[in-house]
Amino acid sequence: MSYTAPIKDMLFVMKELAGLDEVAALPGYEDANADTAQAVLEESAKFCGEVLAPLNVEGDRHPSSWRDGHVTATPGFADAFRRFTAGGWQGLQHPLEYEGQGLPKLVATPCLEMLNAANLSFALCPLLTDGAIEALLTAGSEAQKQTYVPKMLAGVWTGTMNLTEPQAGSDLALVRTRAEPQPDGSYRLSGTKIFITWGEHDMADNIVHLVLARTPDAPAGVKGISLFIVPKFVIGADGSAGARNDVHCVSIEHKLGIKASPTAVLQFGDHGGATGYLVGEENRGLEYMFIMMNAARFAVGLQGIAVSDRAYQKAAAYAKERVQSRPVDGSSNAPVAIIHHPDVRRMLATMRALTEGARALAYVAAAHRDIAHRHTDAATRAEHQALYEFLVPIVKGWSTELSLEVTSLGVQVHGGMGFIEETGAAQYYRDARILTIYEGTTAIQANDLVGRKTVRDGGAVAAQLLKQIELTVAALGAQRGAPFESMRQQLANGHHALQSAVNFVVWNAKSDPNGVFAGSVPYLKLAGIVLGGWQMARAMLAAAGKLDEDRLFYGAKIATAQFFAEHVLSQAGALEAAIVAARGGEGVLGWSEDQF
Amino acid sequence: MSYTAPIKDMLFVMKELAGLDEVAALPGYEDANADTAQAVLEESAKFCGEVLAPLNVEGDRHPSSWRDGHVTATPGFADAFRRFTAGGWQGLQHPLEYEGQGLPKLVATPCLEMLNAANLSFALCPLLTDGAIEALLTAGSEAQKQTYVPKMLAGVWTGTMNLTEPQAGSDLALVRTRAEPQPDGSYRLSGTKIFITWGEHDMADNIVHLVLARTPDAPAGVKGISLFIVPKFVIGADGSAGARNDVHCVSIEHKLGIKASPTAVLQFGDHGGATGYLVGEENRGLEYMFIMMNAARFAVGLQGIAVSDRAYQKAAAYAKERVQSRPVDGSSNAPVAIIHHPDVRRMLATMRALTEGARALAYVAAAHRDIAHRHTDAATRAEHQALYEFLVPIVKGWSTELSLEVTSLGVQVHGGMGFIEETGAAQYYRDARILTIYEGTTAIQANDLVGRKTVRDGGAVAAQLLKQIELTVAALGAQRGAPFESMRQQLANGHHALQSAVNFVVWNAKSDPNGVFAGSVPYLKLAGIVLGGWQMARAMLAAAGKLDEDRLFYGAKIATAQFFAEHVLSQAGALEAAIVAARGGEGVLGWSEDQF
Repeated sequence: MSYTAPIKDMLFVMKELAGLDEVAALPGYEDANADTAQAVLEESAKFCGEVLAPLNVEGDRHPSSWRDGHVTATPGFADAFRRFTAGGWQGLQHPLEYEGQGLPKLVATPCLEMLNAANLSFALCPLLTDGAIEALLTAGSEAQKQTYVPKMLAGVWTGTMNLTEPQAGSDLALVRTRAEPQPDGSYRLSGTKIFITWGEHDMADNIVHLVLARTPDAPAGVKGISLFIVPKFVIGADGSAGARNDVHCVSIEHKLGIKASPTAVLQFGDHGGATGYLVGEENRGLEYMFIMMNAARFAVGLQGIAVSDRAYQKAAAYAKERVQSRPVDGSSNAPVAIIHHPDVRRMLATMRALTEGARALAYVAAAHRDIAHRHTDAATRAEHQALYEFLVPIVKGWSTELSLEVTSLGVQVHGGMGFIEETGAAQYYRDARILTIYEGTTAIQANDLVGRKTVRDGGAVAAQLLKQIELTVAALGAQRGAPFESMRQQLANGHHALQSAVNFVVWNAKSDPNGVFAGSVPYLKLAGIVLGGWQMARAMLAAAGKLDEDRLFYGAKIATAQFFAEHVLSQAGALEAAIVAARGGEGVLGWSEDQF
Repeated sequence: MSYTAPIKDMLFVMKELAGLDEVAALPGYEDANADTAQAVLEESAKFCGEVLAPLNVEGDRHPSSWRDGHVTATPGFADAFRRFTAGGWQGLQHPLEYEGQGLPKLVATPCLEMLNAANLSFALCPLLTDGAIEALLTAGSEAQKQTYVPKMLAGVWTGTMNLTEPQAGSDLALVRTRAEPQPDGSYRLSGTKIFITWGEHDMADNIVHLVLARTPDAPAGVKGISLFIVPKFVIGADGSAGARNDVHCVSIEHKLGIKASPTAVLQFGDHGGATGYLVGEENRGLEYMFIMMNAARFAVGLQGIAVSDRAYQKAAAYAKERVQSRPVDGSSNAPVAIIHHPDVRRMLATMRALTEGARALAYVAAAHRDIAHRHTDAATRAEHQALYEFLVPIVKGWSTELSLEVTSLGVQVHGGMGFIEETGAAQYYRDARILTIYEGTTAIQANDLVGRKTVRDGGAVAAQLLKQIELTVAALGAQRGAPFESMRQQLANGHHALQSAVNFVVWNAKSDPNGVFAGSVPYLKLAGIVLGGWQMARAMLAAAGKLDEDRLFYGAKIATAQFFAEHVLSQAGALEAAIVAARGGEGVLGWSEDQF
């Protein structure tokens, strides 16, 4: 098996760190207890490991292909997609009333991690469909929900997000696609959209494009953007797919990675106009699109964790098998498996510590979302929603940035073989490279974290998290032993650095925006390692209480947390310097263009 | 022009940091004054920019190809190679007596950087030939030198290094290739060598393979390895290439990057035995190969600097051209070129600071080598040779590790376009990924730095460098202004961290080899940022004295150094923690294999 889902690790995080029991006590989630969750994870692991994981390398070697406007997916993908949707996996976290499974996000999240670890390119199709479903459920009319959502949950149709245009990448204010109202209440769209993931394919009967466009009288900028449904085949009165709409895939991109996932250039309205239907109100498109994007951003964060774990599994397996060189401590005269060499251990431990820290933070965020969604108390819901929204850009930005390091280490562990494509380690390195870019680059996430998530509330949510970290630092102080003391010191340092950075950001954002935003990505990374390190500290404390149950498993949790403290959390001071100290003095901010 | 050599920056480093005047005062280098050096650099820049740089993308799109044992280079490469050697570039740093140019390494180094920046795949062919020439000049007989070196300098023949075998990657003790002595004094070789760069091609009349193999009575391990010349065509009595030798390329690899450079599997002796000639004495092969490897390791470090600079140039050009989003400081209501966004500046400044720090350290190392080679005083020669040897693993390991970060940032600056292969940024990211692996992985460099370069002399060379850093810290204290104060603090912290790490390594290598070697790569990186940061500090001081001559250029030097201090040197504490603190406690070193 090329990918084995780490179910035991996942359940540990869900139960000990993310509060699965609390989530299962929420109204509507009563069935989601630990036993059910375990059963769902096991079923998901089986499907992902057996059906999707073996297709991952196929997708790299036989990318989806374009011909005359039609896109053919990698051989095997269409069949796998039928099995995926037949198994009900598309509907995991969607409402029962539209034929979803209605599971908490906390239970859906590990399944989504498995899906992405097994096959990142494949997973993008359901990921985008999820986002489209969420936008329709929030902003669509009842008729639109009834028409589209059950078919999308069943996998008969898939969904896409159409934001980017050649001149409008991160800056949606520049969107130019036009939507002309028609007498029958529909619209006619025309324009070009690029980078549309799974924008055309042969795995489903229809594709539901959600498209940002401007109506004729719309104001300029982001306040004049509306959201439209543009189905590939227009839906007839009976709800079935009818006439071919005027949206065509004119090409797909030749990419560094995720080659099985077709990235389409879509041309709307070259033959008279594409029929579209307004979602919600005019000029509120960006707001609705953010619903999709927040879900998608969290999911892309999970992709970072997923590809990291897969890269780790491959590297660890290779390190156990490859025999090379005698041990440096002279304990053997014969060459040993390279996993016995200290630097190989360091690399594997780095990969694992980063992956586990990011996983814990993402699952904890998912639990906040469940509480925000289902708790009976409005104030509690609001509190957890704010925590979730604070964490989303960190989960997205930090988990994907670290996936670049982890997949790179995965190549390194393989030595020269890592550079040979047949080995497979390089695919993860190439695939991961998109993750810090799409659904908002790391800088976009960092701007969100600084502006909307930190400055807007004067650092209130950040302060709440910092307060909780203090409690963990205190709890670590009550434990004996070097691992706990090491974590206590590093977590206290990290807390101090993050506190200092939050203060700097809140106090200076208005007076010195350039100085603050030049440190926004370091700020996001600092938040990631401190909050991820905090989860590792909590994991360490939980493991300490269970050590006698399983010394190998819980002992590894303690050692991994210590490693995280000494090798990752220890970077907090440098990041603080890059944020706070770097603002002073004549920096590169003042350079003229010619100086670059 | 897709690559413009940064001649002004290079000359600044050569003159102000590496002591070009001192080098030009050495016997034999009298002609290598600043004017000559500038003329050589300008000529090199012209050739690399006009001829080699445009072929770089061609090599990626049309890799070298294998058919029936023959390898055809990318179209245009053979002609470019003829022009390269006709221009005398292969002989730049080789002795006049064998028809080389006899220039100092300090002058050859920037030319080598340009060559690699222009075309990494192409550059590997002369790079390996250089190594073979150096090994023959050091260990070959006079007849061997006369037979092979002039032809190799003229580019009529090229050279290769044959170390790796399927079971022997980093561990040369496992080499199995056999060499049977023949009555005529030659040997017959048989075995398989893999990962042989430019091991077969159609750009030259002959290929001089230098091959590690064992004679029948050789002791086991690395002390039983000898070095042999195995020409593709056996050389006749008249010195010309004659009969085809029994060495055949059975395949080339499908790689992540440097696709134009054929990576050959060579089969020796499948048809009766390949004719080979012993170089130097039996069983001293590894020692001779290290001559090639040290030259090659330094050159691979330069490759890291070169690909970083090229990635920077491309990213900076894109950032000036791509218009997207309004500035965060509200200074414009219209979207601006992304170079005006603070995070884009941070990314470009990171790329530039790392590249300049690594370049300065490499050029300074080259100057040590020149002094070691030509100084009239034996003690001075020995001192500088020791400094050079200390720096080689750092130049190799650090410059290549940072090239992964720099080329990744190059992709990131391009946003979604960076992930599209047509853009070209992804090629640098893929090409760079081999640099931390070949010619000894970063771990191998780090082991060398710890064992042979630090522990063996009890940290004496390290102490000498630390002493010099203290003088620079003091000089910074005499300057006024935030940039200098910021650098002074960070360099003092870096000095402290490196001192602490050196002590730890020296004191514990014997008693706790696993603990020390688990920190060897962080130690190498720490040495890199502190020594690179030291050069940036020296650059800053030099620039301060010349600021009135050219405020843009020298002002950028000061700002880049400050940026390096706050964003890179600031990591010293974290690396120290990973080396010194991480040793304590129950780490992952004690895990069983099952815990991974």
